[in-house]
Amino acid sequence: MSATLRRLPQTNDFLNRLRDIVGVAHVLTDAQDTLPYLDEPRGLWHGQALCVVRPGCTEEVSGILALCDSTGHCVVPQGGNTGLVGGQVPDCSGKQVVLSLTRMNRIREVDPGSNTATVDAGVILAQLHAAAEAADRLFPLSLASEGSCTIGGNLATNAGGTAVLAYGNARDLVIGLEVVLADGRVLSGLSKLRKDNTGYDLRNLFVGSEGTLGIITAAVVKLFPRPRAMATAFIGLASPQHCLDLLLLAQSIAGPDLKTFEFMPQLGLDMVAGWHPKLSVPLPDRHDWYVLMELASPAQDGLADTMIRLLAAAADQGIVENAVVALSLEQRTLFWRWREYLPDAQQREGGSIKHDISVPVALVPRFLEQALRAAGDVVPGARPVPFGHLGDGNVHFNVSQPVGADRDGFLARWSEMNVKIHAIVVACGGSISAEHGIGVLKRDLLPDFKDKVALDVMRVLKRTLDPHGTLNPGKVL
Amino acid sequence: MSATLRRLPQTNDFLNRLRDIVGVAHVLTDAQDTLPYLDEPRGLWHGQALCVVRPGCTEEVSGILALCDSTGHCVVPQGGNTGLVGGQVPDCSGKQVVLSLTRMNRIREVDPGSNTATVDAGVILAQLHAAAEAADRLFPLSLASEGSCTIGGNLATNAGGTAVLAYGNARDLVIGLEVVLADGRVLSGLSKLRKDNTGYDLRNLFVGSEGTLGIITAAVVKLFPRPRAMATAFIGLASPQHCLDLLLLAQSIAGPDLKTFEFMPQLGLDMVAGWHPKLSVPLPDRHDWYVLMELASPAQDGLADTMIRLLAAAADQGIVENAVVALSLEQRTLFWRWREYLPDAQQREGGSIKHDISVPVALVPRFLEQALRAAGDVVPGARPVPFGHLGDGNVHFNVSQPVGADRDGFLARWSEMNVKIHAIVVACGGSISAEHGIGVLKRDLLPDFKDKVALDVMRVLKRTLDPHGTLNPGKVL
Repeated sequence: MSATLRRLPQTNDFLNRLRDIVGVAHVLTDAQDTLPYLDEPRGLWHGQALCVVRPGCTEEVSGILALCDSTGHCVVPQGGNTGLVGGQVPDCSGKQVVLSLTRMNRIREVDPGSNTATVDAGVILAQLHAAAEAADRLFPLSLASEGSCTIGGNLATNAGGTAVLAYGNARDLVIGLEVVLADGRVLSGLSKLRKDNTGYDLRNLFVGSEGTLGIITAAVVKLFPRPRAMATAFIGLASPQHCLDLLLLAQSIAGPDLKTFEFMPQLGLDMVAGWHPKLSVPLPDRHDWYVLMELASPAQDGLADTMIRLLAAAADQGIVENAVVALSLEQRTLFWRWREYLPDAQQREGGSIKHDISVPVALVPRFLEQALRAAGDVVPGARPVPFGHLGDGNVHFNVSQPVGADRDGFLARWSEMNVKIHAIVVACGGSISAEHGIGVLKRDLLPDFKDKVALDVMRVLKRTLDPHGTLNPGKVL
Repeated sequence: MSATLRRLPQTNDFLNRLRDIVGVAHVLTDAQDTLPYLDEPRGLWHGQALCVVRPGCTEEVSGILALCDSTGHCVVPQGGNTGLVGGQVPDCSGKQVVLSLTRMNRIREVDPGSNTATVDAGVILAQLHAAAEAADRLFPLSLASEGSCTIGGNLATNAGGTAVLAYGNARDLVIGLEVVLADGRVLSGLSKLRKDNTGYDLRNLFVGSEGTLGIITAAVVKLFPRPRAMATAFIGLASPQHCLDLLLLAQSIAGPDLKTFEFMPQLGLDMVAGWHPKLSVPLPDRHDWYVLMELASPAQDGLADTMIRLLAAAADQGIVENAVVALSLEQRTLFWRWREYLPDAQQREGGSIKHDISVPVALVPRFLEQALRAAGDVVPGARPVPFGHLGDGNVHFNVSQPVGADRDGFLARWSEMNVKIHAIVVACGGSISAEHGIGVLKRDLLPDFKDKVALDVMRVLKRTLDPHGTLNPGKVL
């Protein structure tokens, strides 16, 4: 390969030492081989790399980091390469090493008695779902990319998704971690303990640090009893405040059985309908807003009654305009399609300026009222389709271009739109990255939004745990 | 005061500067005034202090720390002074400053719409319970000391208690934190956000650090819908394995409605009965083990049916020997008394060698079998009364002295007993401090039990965040 020929002798020496650690077949340098690790799915970032190294076990990760840290090579850890903020993509220097964890995909143990699973970082989320199910258990983390994202990536980015309301973020689902530090030392914390107060909580320092403080190589995660009954409703409502009122009512009546509370506007349904004209509309009339609400319980019965009682109470109080409850698994699947197809439909509608924000749950209506107005002020005719996890205060405030407008011209307004929307977020005490993380996309925004002392502490932690700047440089900070 | 007269001029200058910050009335130096802050309730530790300072707000805490850090004075933060490992007690040098947070006891806000409460660190846990209840919400953290412990202390020690099974530890109940760092800088993280992925998770670094990395001055905690229905059962079983089988069955049938799963042996009941002879026995016959199990739900009804169905299934499978369900609030209170009176009864039985340990839930039976045998090997006739939070794998393995034995002679075997029991804990992959923390009691044990790399990282974090060793020196590390 010409690219290889032009490399300096010390580079060849470095690559040979990597090959000694993981085997020749697992150090990729050929452009064809490395491409899938350098591009990210939406095409927003494309990087170059010295090589892609694919370790098969924790000891190999340790060896790679010890080598890179001592020779001044930077390492970009990568799981399923599905992140939305560019955290998993190397820069364009061609000097960084991409460390892919996908070969480490062993489910080490499922322990139904302790309700835990011990897994390698490269295990694909759907694979973990299946392993839990085979033991009559549930691993609840649920995302659009679950067929290709890895549990290590989920933990490194503290992934969210549609089950956060009942089960929490990735952070809340992990009990123990094995982490390789920048210099190759292995922090062994694969405990299955529900309670352990022996010193500082190091686990949460690495969860959500996007590979900048250490590389997660394995985890012990929580399993839950598998729901046996489910009740799903598609509900039409007049306003975000009505959606919030319904949420509080549902929490007070169904408590922890409330598992899903996703919302979207009529425009979202219109977009999905436009691209999927054969999909049956769930409700006969049009409503300004919709909620997809799901209850689930390990008990066999009683849940349909709870759902009916809940919806009847909501109707009595004038909270909902109309609602339909799924009577079959097919109907449930149909309801979910309207939610699941939305991001793709919005992408097909042309340019979309995205915001992954959160505000205190009670302030979602205020945020939406102000943000919807602001989006139209920045680009008249722009079509905001805010949707997502109302129960967590997490809104994907994505703004589609005006019909027929120029895509690039619209996307050129990205920053301007961000500034306006983020100002409203801040005024509500919110966050500019609710679940997608910082990566490179929001790195330069962070100093404007983060508490100065918190940012100082983050920087000092980074310097302390990664003094040579080996781990995922240029991400987060 | 003679003690004051003997102080060096620079000490008087220091005290005057403290008085400038908090007011004369809130710097205590008189022996009478300081005593309640220097003794801990069980009389295991008694310290001396230069003074006790009682700030009224975060800015005052900041001023105190800036002063102490720059003048080389060490600070021992203290909440309700109820900790069980001596973390809140100063050493005997008389040079340390006790910083009591009890004056900071304001509930800043209860937001039922966002299901959060924002509170000062010195708010007493029971006060927070009441504030949540007044807003028709539940704050679930529940401990024996809830009438006097503070939420700041609960968070600093990551308190556990009887509601961990359903709601998690203190760590799991906090959303936002305000923390004063060693040098007086204020880290403002009082966000009400359920999701926020803007950088490293600093919150969990301070939760459970026992005041050695920063002083928690305020917190945003999660509130939950208040349970409206409750079903409580007292159950007799033949062995710990049967208790575990019942736990798994209860989780699969009742799911998140399972709120309490406490266990204790017959000897525990005998001890309580001995000191409370008028307390009605919950079950007519004797059983080797007992479980106090509680379901709770925001739904009004259906729970008693679930409990009956659960117990019938358990009986069918030969898991339980007998069970009784509380038919009134009085009966529920009675069941709980048997659990709540146990620690006190055991104390009255003479010397007790304590272990607050956890193991993976599935290994509780194995641990108990081995530990019960070991306790008798160390001190023949010793009476172990293991009890606690089986659902979390958390056993209070407390060993009472043989009947009529010499108390001091028995307690002199403390270390020897610890060594044996902790060896079994370690062989089970367990922890020597499940919920009480490290403090001074277990500080010197930590290096034998903690992963070496984890301990190194803990030490480097301590040096980074508290370079002058100002915060609670000699605790944890």
